[in-house]
Formats: sequence, structure tokens, C-alpha cells
Amino acid sequence: MTISDLGEFGLIEAIAAALPRSDRTIVGIGDDAAVLSAPDARVVATTDLLVEGRHFRRDWSGPADIGAKAAARNLADVAAMGAVPVALLVGFAAPGNLAAAWARDMVAGLAEECARAGATVAGGDVSGAETILLAVTALGDLGGRDPVTRSGARPGDVLACAGVLGESAAGLALLEAGLTEPAPLLAAHRRPAPPYPAGPEAAALGATAMIDVSDGLLADAGHLARASGVQIDVDTTRFPGHPALAAAAAALGRPGPLDWVLTGGEDHALAATFPPGSALPPHWTIIGQVRAGQGVLVNGNRVTGHAGWNHFGN
Amino acid sequence: MTISDLGEFGLIEAIAAALPRSDRTIVGIGDDAAVLSAPDARVVATTDLLVEGRHFRRDWSGPADIGAKAAARNLADVAAMGAVPVALLVGFAAPGNLAAAWARDMVAGLAEECARAGATVAGGDVSGAETILLAVTALGDLGGRDPVTRSGARPGDVLACAGVLGESAAGLALLEAGLTEPAPLLAAHRRPAPPYPAGPEAAALGATAMIDVSDGLLADAGHLARASGVQIDVDTTRFPGHPALAAAAAALGRPGPLDWVLTGGEDHALAATFPPGSALPPHWTIIGQVRAGQGVLVNGNRVTGHAGWNHFGN
Repeated sequence: MTISDLGEFGLIEAIAAALPRSDRTIVGIGDDAAVLSAPDARVVATTDLLVEGRHFRRDWSGPADIGAKAAARNLADVAAMGAVPVALLVGFAAPGNLAAAWARDMVAGLAEECARAGATVAGGDVSGAETILLAVTALGDLGGRDPVTRSGARPGDVLACAGVLGESAAGLALLEAGLTEPAPLLAAHRRPAPPYPAGPEAAALGATAMIDVSDGLLADAGHLARASGVQIDVDTTRFPGHPALAAAAAALGRPGPLDWVLTGGEDHALAATFPPGSALPPHWTIIGQVRAGQGVLVNGNRVTGHAGWNHFGN
Repeated sequence: MTISDLGEFGLIEAIAAALPRSDRTIVGIGDDAAVLSAPDARVVATTDLLVEGRHFRRDWSGPADIGAKAAARNLADVAAMGAVPVALLVGFAAPGNLAAAWARDMVAGLAEECARAGATVAGGDVSGAETILLAVTALGDLGGRDPVTRSGARPGDVLACAGVLGESAAGLALLEAGLTEPAPLLAAHRRPAPPYPAGPEAAALGATAMIDVSDGLLADAGHLARASGVQIDVDTTRFPGHPALAAAAAALGRPGPLDWVLTGGEDHALAATFPPGSALPPHWTIIGQVRAGQGVLVNGNRVTGHAGWNHFGN
């Protein structure tokens, strides 16, 4: 049974049947548009594309993981504004000969990640295409808080991080080398676990700026620094030891895991700046300092070379 | 200059610079997510995919038309709920060797159609891909009105239509035959002009159900009939004469334009049902009758055969 056999409307019905509804959904899947409650009188909205062969490979990730990852990327962007994820809209393009079971498992993964974040799927669209593409839009609720943008960091603030760094990049390097251990890193690449509640929490704790780490810590700290007009100095002695990352580096003959931690994206950790003296819960690790100036330093030294990923490059 | 030369961030900056901001935009392009005001405390949201070779051809449509059409499809869905379009989020996937000017012109077309609808572009994402794909999400504001869903039509209601029917399908048929006249029909295919204000207007006039005609009048009336649990009888004697459609039918050796009017999608007219005796403004044409029963009739006869378009078919 392929999605072409199901047909457009059959596929939409199969998807809708697999998804829970939320009490925030006034009109759900099956009309011209969804209607969601927005009691805060503001709505947070972000959209992201996942393209087969560029953002995922079907031989490296199963459909549920791919669906979950597509959701996670967008839900993390909502959290990075200090908002609570409410709903996704999902555009799904695929070849007609794709197995219907693949599409259903992908949607199940999407729904699982939504549930982890407290969100639902409120609508979507399906289309034929040569390769699989997921276009996910996430909507979120600020719950009365001010949005935490990238531009509020001030000299004297500290840089802190919630969630993991480098695991997805290490998992990808292992996959590229044909290795299967340490397995948790491969799992982290296939299905990142962004710390969604840490976003609204950071807003409540007075975060001055925040970003979802999707391009790599140094690149994303660079986005914060540029938007805020400050310099950010990352202190690598603050990173806790990570035996699995160290084992992966050893297995691949690399000097150590720091490159993954500093430049690996796709874990969707949250990086935020807080006023000096902020009392942060333990899952927020202070990893740097905000100063007057510009750019990103590592242990006081200016960064050169690779610090991110150009999506039109190789 | 290609979009690969511009790079991901250069392309986003070029796009952002070309777009007007709106006073509804609290946080716009350049952060993890946009923040929009939603004074109604509800938000209307819909998403749609446009895939090169399936929804448009670059040799038949220029980039501004393709951008405008991608916007129109989604903005019309918002209007069909009785809402006013507020903002778009745009995912844009394309080969790295695409001319940067093409991308800029596409965005200009998007912005033009947004302006026609009173909306803005609040965010987006770019990615590499083998073929061009646009994933557009539209958000809208109900302004205190109840959403007009597909499910409220009642026996005794009239079916009415605002906007044009069949022009896009006729234009496509002319393009497929290599013809260039009547030119307005080709233009209607390349850049549909949905009657956005008619959506909120219909809601205010007491419309009981409404749909954006994107699959063709009969197919979309079928969606309304099924969701509402009613029968809809379309009266073709109500359609005004249309010299350009008649000329196109003659040029293509077809018996007449009625097939385009009844089954052509993509004009994004609005079809709505109204209680009997409703006083409708002249741009709403009564074209049928709602009865107890099920399915769609044409002049009292049950429809057989083609009545829509399966996106996984040919």
C-alpha cells in the first residue's frame, strides 16, 4: 500500500485519525484552516524545512525519528522565544510510491514529539514530490511573558545552556563512518530531545536573550552577539565531561569532542544570557560571559574557521 | 549570482530587506520565531505546499507570479474561514544554482500578493533541494467573528460564489496547447486573484459554511456537502456568460467552458452557503441550492466522473 493508493484525502484522513486533539484547537484538521485559541493575544510562529538527503537520510533514520526531528526543530524555536508550543502545521511532500506505513510512522513520530512538548498537530497539506520534504510550522503561547529575542544580551550577562551539545554531530560522524557505537549518540542524532520547558523557564528567570542551538554553539552565539551588539566569550572549562562523546572521538581518531560541542548543531539545546548574579537551576549550565565588543571568543581567543553550516553548500 | 553565492544568511537578509513590516508584527524576520499580535485571542492558521513541476512550471510562470500564487493559495484559505489575513511564514527550498534574481522576484511577488490581502511576511526558512518548493503558512484574524467552517450548511440555504471560476483551468489548458490567447486567462492561471474581503464579509452576512475553491467547484461543494451532511444542487443557468472562456473553449475545440467552471481549481474563488432570503451584495452570485440528502447535483442530476484532482495522481 503506497500513499498514491491512499490518495490525497485518504492520506489526510489517516494522518488526522492518528493525531490527538487539544482543547486549544477550536477548528482542527479538515477545514480550510485551523483555528486555535491564543489567550495571550499574541502568537509565536516559526517554520522550518526538512529535505531528504540534506537534513535526513532514510537509510540512517526511521520514519518515526524523522517525524519527531521535524517537530523538534520547530518546537525548539518556539521554546527559544520563551513560549510554550501549542500546535504544528505540517506540509508533507513525498513520491507517490512511498509506503503508506512510512507516512503513518512519520506522523506517529511527529505526534510523539508534539506530546512531549505539550503541543498538537492542527493542520497540514500533502503533495507529491520527487523526494520527501517536511515543512513544519510551529505556533506557541507566551503566557503573558515578554518574548526573549536574540537582541537583549548586555555586557556583564552570563551565557548559559540547557540541553545537550555535540551529541547529534557526534552521532552523525559515527553514521558517516559506518559505526554503531556509542548507540546513544546515534539516537541523539536521529531524535534530538530539546529541553522545551527550559525556554519559558528562562523567560521567567529574566533571560535577556535566547537562541535555539541549531547551527552550532559558536555560530548561534555569534547570532546572539551580533543581534545584541555584544561580545560573547565561551569558557570550555565549564562544559561537563561527556564519556560517550569522548569515546566517539576516540573511535573516530579525533583529538577530542570539543569540535562537536562547539560547532555541532541539531541537538536543539537552548543558549540564553542572564543578568549577572542570576540564580539558575542546575539544568542551566553557565558556559560563558557577555562583554562589550563584538564576535565570539573561545577561552578569550577569537574564533577562526568553521563555525556553522551553509545550507546551500555541500 | 546564484542563491548559493548569496548563502543562507545572505538570502534571508535579501528577502527580509524586500518585505514591508506590519504593526501586527511584534518580532519579525531574524529571530528564532516571529511574534504577532492576536487581539482576537484566536488565530487562524493554514499551510500549503507548491512543488515545481506539479503546481507550477518555470517555463510557464515567472518568479513573481509563482510567489504571488503561493501566497494567494494560503491567504484564500484564511479568507474562507471568515478571517482577515495577517501574516505569512514562507519555507523556500531550491537548487543552489538558482539565480538570486529569481528568488528575489519570487519574494517580490509574494509581498505584492500579501499587500493585496493586507498581510505581511513574518518569517520563513530556506534550504537547498533538487527542485523548487514553496511551503507557505498563513495566519489570520477573525476580528471577533465566529469562524465559518465547512460544516454549517443547512437545507434551504443557497450556495453562492465570489470570485471567478474556470479561468485558471482554461489558462492552463491554453498553456498546455501552446496557445497565448485569450491572454487574461493565461494571466489568471499564473496569478489568481482571490476575493479576500469577501471572506470576512460572508461571515458578517451570516454565511453558514464556506470553502476556498481550490479543487474545483464540484469537488469543493462536495466537501461542504459531506461536512455539513447536506446535498448541494448547482444551477449552471446561474453562471454569467464569460466571452473569454467561450473563446478559449472554441480555440481548443471544446464544446464549451462549463467543465472548467465546474471542475477547475486554483482560481481560489470562495463558495459559501447563506440562509434563505439573505440579501447578498452583487459580487456574491447565487449558483445553487442546499437540500436534505447528500452529494452534489448539477441541475438536479447526480455528478459522475472527474470532480477534482488527486495530488498523487498524474
